Amino acid sequence: MKKINVGIVGYGNLGKGVESAINHSEYFNLVKIFSNRTGLTSPFNSSFEETKNLEKYSGKIDILFLCGGSYSDIEKIGPRAIKLFNTVDSFDTHAKLEKYINSLDKMAKNAQKVAVSAAGWDPGLMSMMRIIFNSVSPVHTPANAFWGMGVSQGHSDAIRRVNGVKNAIQYTVPNQKIVKRCETEFDYVPQGTEKHSRLCYVVLEEDADKEAVKNEIINMPNYFLGYNTTVKFVNEEKLKKMQEKMFHKGLVVKNFKCSDKHATQLKFTLDVESNPFFTAEVMVTLACAVYKLNKEKKFGAYSVFDIPLSYFSMQDRNTLVKTLL
Amino acid sequence: MKKINVGIVGYGNLGKGVESAINHSEYFNLVKIFSNRTGLTSPFNSSFEETKNLEKYSGKIDILFLCGGSYSDIEKIGPRAIKLFNTVDSFDTHAKLEKYINSLDKMAKNAQKVAVSAAGWDPGLMSMMRIIFNSVSPVHTPANAFWGMGVSQGHSDAIRRVNGVKNAIQYTVPNQKIVKRCETEFDYVPQGTEKHSRLCYVVLEEDADKEAVKNEIINMPNYFLGYNTTVKFVNEEKLKKMQEKMFHKGLVVKNFKCSDKHATQLKFTLDVESNPFFTAEVMVTLACAVYKLNKEKKFGAYSVFDIPLSYFSMQDRNTLVKTLL
Repeated sequence: MKKINVGIVGYGNLGKGVESAINHSEYFNLVKIFSNRTGLTSPFNSSFEETKNLEKYSGKIDILFLCGGSYSDIEKIGPRAIKLFNTVDSFDTHAKLEKYINSLDKMAKNAQKVAVSAAGWDPGLMSMMRIIFNSVSPVHTPANAFWGMGVSQGHSDAIRRVNGVKNAIQYTVPNQKIVKRCETEFDYVPQGTEKHSRLCYVVLEEDADKEAVKNEIINMPNYFLGYNTTVKFVNEEKLKKMQEKMFHKGLVVKNFKCSDKHATQLKFTLDVESNPFFTAEVMVTLACAVYKLNKEKKFGAYSVFDIPLSYFSMQDRNTLVKTLL
Repeated sequence: MKKINVGIVGYGNLGKGVESAINHSEYFNLVKIFSNRTGLTSPFNSSFEETKNLEKYSGKIDILFLCGGSYSDIEKIGPRAIKLFNTVDSFDTHAKLEKYINSLDKMAKNAQKVAVSAAGWDPGLMSMMRIIFNSVSPVHTPANAFWGMGVSQGHSDAIRRVNGVKNAIQYTVPNQKIVKRCETEFDYVPQGTEKHSRLCYVVLEEDADKEAVKNEIINMPNYFLGYNTTVKFVNEEKLKKMQEKMFHKGLVVKNFKCSDKHATQLKFTLDVESNPFFTAEVMVTLACAVYKLNKEKKFGAYSVFDIPLSYFSMQDRNTLVKTLL
């Protein structure tokens, strides 16, 4: 088949991941990477363009991958891009997803475009496992999800906002005792804060008060208060090395008695060496859905809950039923 | 909400599983169990009716669960039932699925009904994992699936057809060395016959030739030839006890390097104490999809590849996006 012309907006870790995934895919042809920064270079010799010129590529690009570096980027670029392009984003502010996707849906229908939003590993693959596991035997307690060990960007950012902190990274670590209980006891419901511990590595500003910084972190509401939190102080060099490694893990498990009688366990695990590169891979997977939905003129904005699984693959539905069902 | 009136056709292990799942569900009301046999009793005091009278329940039953005891049953009852009822079946002859679902689709559209076919754990949940895992990074080798340890009904039947065999059961056992390779090596593709070994327990007829029976089993093409097959002879009493335990397991794993660089593993495991009761649970899950699709007049026959995940749950789509995405 003819390759599908795509573009990337944003060239942080996620944008670089999508660039690499596209260069490893047989279906897509990368036309441009859009960034507000100039003078960028790429390991794939990709062609760059300033984001302000995005609209000039209408008709030349079929699908845009929105890889903005911050949450607010997606909410700004999404409504702008959908007027002229089909889009895929990995918007991950769980609290805002429903409202964002539903408002994007109206815009996409008006523009006769297709958007898939929140395409990554969580939200994304992990969400799919949650809805599948919970739908089976819904009278039983919902599936339990665990994250890590891996870096939480939100928690790392929160630490960096503390007075006296120069740089920081936060690892979310599942409590293995609680994981074990979820896997062996039926319908076990752990407390939210006991599921994970939080491991913080901090580089202090020169004249910072170690104890004050530590206290401010472990008592931060919503982020650390109530959690088993460990704060370790390291030098800048060590922290920079830690920040290079972007591994992560995920686990979704449901353990229940089928018909209150027969032990049953559903379990999904994900283990990724590069969080942004895997998120990018899922975005490129969902670009297949965008392509198929657009071809069938099923315009609108979709989450992974709204798309039949046969749309996730470029193979036609009958072949998929024949070979994989 | 008002409970949905349902019926069951067939009262073997699967029919009993669906009966139990319905009695544990808040959404469904069991109107009748249809069987060709008479004088049946039920632990839930269900009401029975002869299958020949099925058509009399048109308008009184919204969804029929087709739990025929053999493959041919589904192909007979499916086309008959879809004229008057929405249906769910767990038809599992992989080679026939595409043709069956596509022909049922035409009948369902004509009758303005909805059918979900091949709803179980495999085909079903395992198929969903295969299509999801394969769709991510499709340039890499497909996910590997393993079954067991658990009973294969088809292989047990095949042994029972051997001359001199009175009764038999066959356990499919994954080769743990091969499982390990699939989990640790990247893009590893095992041979079909090395993935599982086959453990057979046989009760002989009184004057049967032990060696001849054993040789006929291990050399049976398509079923045992090429496999690591063990044949053990037991007495009828021991075999009957084994036949009471219908546990099974499943594993789908994909291990690859994301962008040819970053180790990535997706893994799904299923562990069920009762194969028919869990299959029944998945059928009842898909009855939610039948209900929602029918309400939206999206008539036709569906596989799990054709239905958005938000249809798997009775909760409305926006709530699912808000709470599970």
